[in-house]
Amino acid sequence: MGGSFGTALMVDVTERTAEASQLPGEWYRDYLGGEGIGARLLYDLVDPDEEPLSPLQPLIFTAGPLTGTAAPASGRCVLVFRSPLTGTLGAANAGGHFAPALKRAGYDVLVVSGRSEVPLVLVVDGEGVDFIEVPDIWGKGVVETETLIRSRLEGTGWQIASIGPAGEKGVLFSSIMTDRHRAFGRGGAGALMGSKNLKAIAVRGAEEMPLADPDGLREGARKAREELFNEAFVRDEMKPFGTPSFYDAMSGLGILPTKNWQRDSYPESIGTLGYRAYHETLEVRPYACFGCPIACGRHTTIKSGPWAGMEGGGPEYETVAAFGSKCLVTDLEAVAAANHIANDLGLDVISTGQVIATAMEWVDRSILSEERLQGLPLAFGNGEAVVRLVGMIGRREGLGDLLAQGSLRAARELGPEALDAVMTVKGMEMAADGVRASKGEVLSHVISPRGADHLRPYAPTIDAFGYRENELDITTDAVISFGEDGNKGWVRPLMANAMIPNLLGVCLFTNITLAVRPSTWAELFSCALGRPVDKDELLLAAERVINLERLLNASFGFGRADDRLPDRFLKEPGVDGPGAGQVVDLDAALDSFYEAMGWDLDEGLPTKETLIRLGLDWTL
Amino acid sequence: MGGSFGTALMVDVTERTAEASQLPGEWYRDYLGGEGIGARLLYDLVDPDEEPLSPLQPLIFTAGPLTGTAAPASGRCVLVFRSPLTGTLGAANAGGHFAPALKRAGYDVLVVSGRSEVPLVLVVDGEGVDFIEVPDIWGKGVVETETLIRSRLEGTGWQIASIGPAGEKGVLFSSIMTDRHRAFGRGGAGALMGSKNLKAIAVRGAEEMPLADPDGLREGARKAREELFNEAFVRDEMKPFGTPSFYDAMSGLGILPTKNWQRDSYPESIGTLGYRAYHETLEVRPYACFGCPIACGRHTTIKSGPWAGMEGGGPEYETVAAFGSKCLVTDLEAVAAANHIANDLGLDVISTGQVIATAMEWVDRSILSEERLQGLPLAFGNGEAVVRLVGMIGRREGLGDLLAQGSLRAARELGPEALDAVMTVKGMEMAADGVRASKGEVLSHVISPRGADHLRPYAPTIDAFGYRENELDITTDAVISFGEDGNKGWVRPLMANAMIPNLLGVCLFTNITLAVRPSTWAELFSCALGRPVDKDELLLAAERVINLERLLNASFGFGRADDRLPDRFLKEPGVDGPGAGQVVDLDAALDSFYEAMGWDLDEGLPTKETLIRLGLDWTL
Repeated sequence: MGGSFGTALMVDVTERTAEASQLPGEWYRDYLGGEGIGARLLYDLVDPDEEPLSPLQPLIFTAGPLTGTAAPASGRCVLVFRSPLTGTLGAANAGGHFAPALKRAGYDVLVVSGRSEVPLVLVVDGEGVDFIEVPDIWGKGVVETETLIRSRLEGTGWQIASIGPAGEKGVLFSSIMTDRHRAFGRGGAGALMGSKNLKAIAVRGAEEMPLADPDGLREGARKAREELFNEAFVRDEMKPFGTPSFYDAMSGLGILPTKNWQRDSYPESIGTLGYRAYHETLEVRPYACFGCPIACGRHTTIKSGPWAGMEGGGPEYETVAAFGSKCLVTDLEAVAAANHIANDLGLDVISTGQVIATAMEWVDRSILSEERLQGLPLAFGNGEAVVRLVGMIGRREGLGDLLAQGSLRAARELGPEALDAVMTVKGMEMAADGVRASKGEVLSHVISPRGADHLRPYAPTIDAFGYRENELDITTDAVISFGEDGNKGWVRPLMANAMIPNLLGVCLFTNITLAVRPSTWAELFSCALGRPVDKDELLLAAERVINLERLLNASFGFGRADDRLPDRFLKEPGVDGPGAGQVVDLDAALDSFYEAMGWDLDEGLPTKETLIRLGLDWTL
Repeated sequence: MGGSFGTALMVDVTERTAEASQLPGEWYRDYLGGEGIGARLLYDLVDPDEEPLSPLQPLIFTAGPLTGTAAPASGRCVLVFRSPLTGTLGAANAGGHFAPALKRAGYDVLVVSGRSEVPLVLVVDGEGVDFIEVPDIWGKGVVETETLIRSRLEGTGWQIASIGPAGEKGVLFSSIMTDRHRAFGRGGAGALMGSKNLKAIAVRGAEEMPLADPDGLREGARKAREELFNEAFVRDEMKPFGTPSFYDAMSGLGILPTKNWQRDSYPESIGTLGYRAYHETLEVRPYACFGCPIACGRHTTIKSGPWAGMEGGGPEYETVAAFGSKCLVTDLEAVAAANHIANDLGLDVISTGQVIATAMEWVDRSILSEERLQGLPLAFGNGEAVVRLVGMIGRREGLGDLLAQGSLRAARELGPEALDAVMTVKGMEMAADGVRASKGEVLSHVISPRGADHLRPYAPTIDAFGYRENELDITTDAVISFGEDGNKGWVRPLMANAMIPNLLGVCLFTNITLAVRPSTWAELFSCALGRPVDKDELLLAAERVINLERLLNASFGFGRADDRLPDRFLKEPGVDGPGAGQVVDLDAALDSFYEAMGWDLDEGLPTKETLIRLGLDWTL
């Protein structure tokens, strides 16, 4: 019985068992799919008293109802887990082709728990589940790992998610990589997978997608692609130049973190790190995830210098900023090398770059002793030191071992004076999306369930483009008063809108520019599941998930007191660009935000009325 | 994580394993509890292609949110399963003390599946689960079984549910008995338990009830008791005389099936079977299920005649009619003896009496050969033959083996001419609640998910008492036009109202007279779970469950074509009482009913719009 959606494969690597389980059909009504189902499942599976790296903790890979369909950019996979870096909900979101393969194997969700005694590869296809012992692959980088695993599997069509040495060694911001260069990056999922002695997961399948109305879906997909390419930013920037095209704009808007966030723009780097330079300095090929007409991904080869010939996926905008502007490094080849090495080791490039920028500030302020540095010429601007330190972190060598715990734990080890340079929220390193000139981005970083987060909602959308009519209940007044005291009018609908792709299994880039309309997503969802849903129900479900994640974090001990930005933004006025002279009034922003969400001002938790409105009062 | 409600104990008697599992919290919002949760769980667990007696089929014992609390009559347990008698959903509802004990052991739901190789007792308490092998108890009657099991368990406080020889031998209308004399009667759950080689389940516990607002609940319970005893029928008839008090009224209303439904009243039996005679002829003690202020149950001892000294629970009204008026037997001692023997063998007294009445008509019409009868003097009016035949059915001896399959299968074995005397709907023997003079009861029998059923809704409530204001959306006009063409106005709210007790874990007798108000139940539910629910949400949830059960039956192959009454009621006009001269216009009644429910007229299934309105579109 039950619908055709919602088959979860529950794998225990301790016992090497696997069982298919039908998730409640109601969940695909209340949480839509993807991250929503993952969060709901975590709510049942997680024991808040268990440590994040306990064998009992699950890794929950989710596909969405649109994953693997004709809907544009439908290759996304959201991994839900409890983050060993932050202790919060972890929700790492990767592109590539892994989730469509999982779905074609017959599963919408893959849950892995337990701890194996020997390194394993979990093999899932339509026929069944297998466990292959791979002690000899343990220690290998991601690219070699994928190659070796493919050589041991029969046939073709395998999609692989694996960890590198960083995940094996428990680096708290290690990633799980898929399709070699796409990352489940944020929150340390690699360490969780490593703690299970699980080196990789290989998936393939040939099942028909269970679509209620394939013709309607194709028609909806055509409409979505049209809406996507009506958006000039997608058409004229993201498609031809990928995410590196953001770099120049972010600097101009004063939201490009520079020199560990002491500055917010870096005009002098545009000539070497800007998107035109990027496409000239590196040999670039576009890369598309499953079903993506944008193909924003870049695959690059370093053409000259000490790392000539090194190749891989990226660097993306975030990586250019992480190893570039944040570290005051203008050498794109060093940035690309650091990127390629980090990916192969299985490190989250965002946290890695940020932790290095923080360490550079510690050097500046003589907080890192010579003994810690052991001769590493770490200093703002030294690209070669960045490249070396990336490797040391991934292998936990010397200073790398200290930094592998993340900035906050490292600072605590160094002493209270180190804390000022730590740019984290809830222990998560901030991505490269500045806050002084984007009061909306303040909220993104502070209120995301997974710690510092530039994507929920991606507020620069409005900073950069202004608000364009997109069926959301946002008034012009609200946009005009955008900022600390005006959150009421825009943040709730914008957050819900930004959550939709994570639920449906499509890429956030389809709607951070507000390109694809909620009503179009509703149409696509309806065609996939055969149940009519309108945009308001879709947005309400997204809001329900946002609130459920807030409740999950509350069970982990997080509340208003943890919704803090680094003091730097509250105390040190901006020195350049549009944010010059500005500091953040965080308490005003939070009050206004909680009020908009229907959360109480003391704890920042959904009120009883809000839970009732969202049908979440069963959690009471 | 999750609320404090909804822990299911999943037991596999093949492997002798038991695992506690948290049910989705949403289910306690959407289906409230009890039978609703049971039906929802069955929806996920059942494979419609498996035979009803397959080891894979689960027995789902459910307690409700009010079970075991201060709410009046809160000792009910609903057992959900797929009926081996009908092939439909089975929902057998017993009083006693079993469900409160289950709840105090820490479980809201107990699911048993599998098949043991040796006869077992499943033992559940707060400490854990045990399996005791009892090959020597196999074959024993229910009373001795309970006694022997108690002697092998440590301590006191055990509540036991067990089967007698009828369940062991697969009689398709065998019951599971609890507290010796309370029955999970209808649909053959005993055969399903017997097929698992499970002789009994013993439960006890000492956990605190997880109540959100115990003070509020006590206050609501006080209000409910007051409403209950404001109802004269409860106060002046059910409490002093129990269900036997119905007998005289049913005959007067012309809805007392007599001589296998050839007649609808039996005034000449009132002097021996009427409730005053009952309390004079038998030695009677009232019996109360857990927390019941009515204590409608009767415990009787036969004072004289061939069965003098025989004692047990009942006979209740249904049994008096089943072995009395239906069989034209006026000897109450024979009726009581048949009742006590049937209960000890673990037979559903309603089906047993009905199958015997049908067999008597076969004798009248020379359909049962002498070879089949083997000297049994079976004929309308012969109480001693009834008593003997009950034992033969329970032990599957001679003619009893034929009848143990139920009337419909037995008739098919005898030939087409036998079918006219079969009084079943969907293969379920009709209880003693007549239809010719109660057009509302026509629908109860025809549209209940479990086959012929007098209780969903118990329409004589309105026939007998008229409609009294009870917060239901029923207009006076609708009540005036009560009958085949006026179902629209009353049936939906009345059905929902009648479902509420089964969801909450209280007794239907609290509201078949419309005594306790929906708003009072809503208040009690809210206090138990700590989530505010109003009466409209409660009624909507009840309607959701009714529709979900309809969908379950659809998956088993049931639709409009199966919503049939025996032809007798469509072709043979009533000969006595208020129904004299009347036949049933079933198609008109069904059209009007389906329309009221939002079901399509062709298949009798919820339309897409209805599923959306009820939030059941995830089943599409």
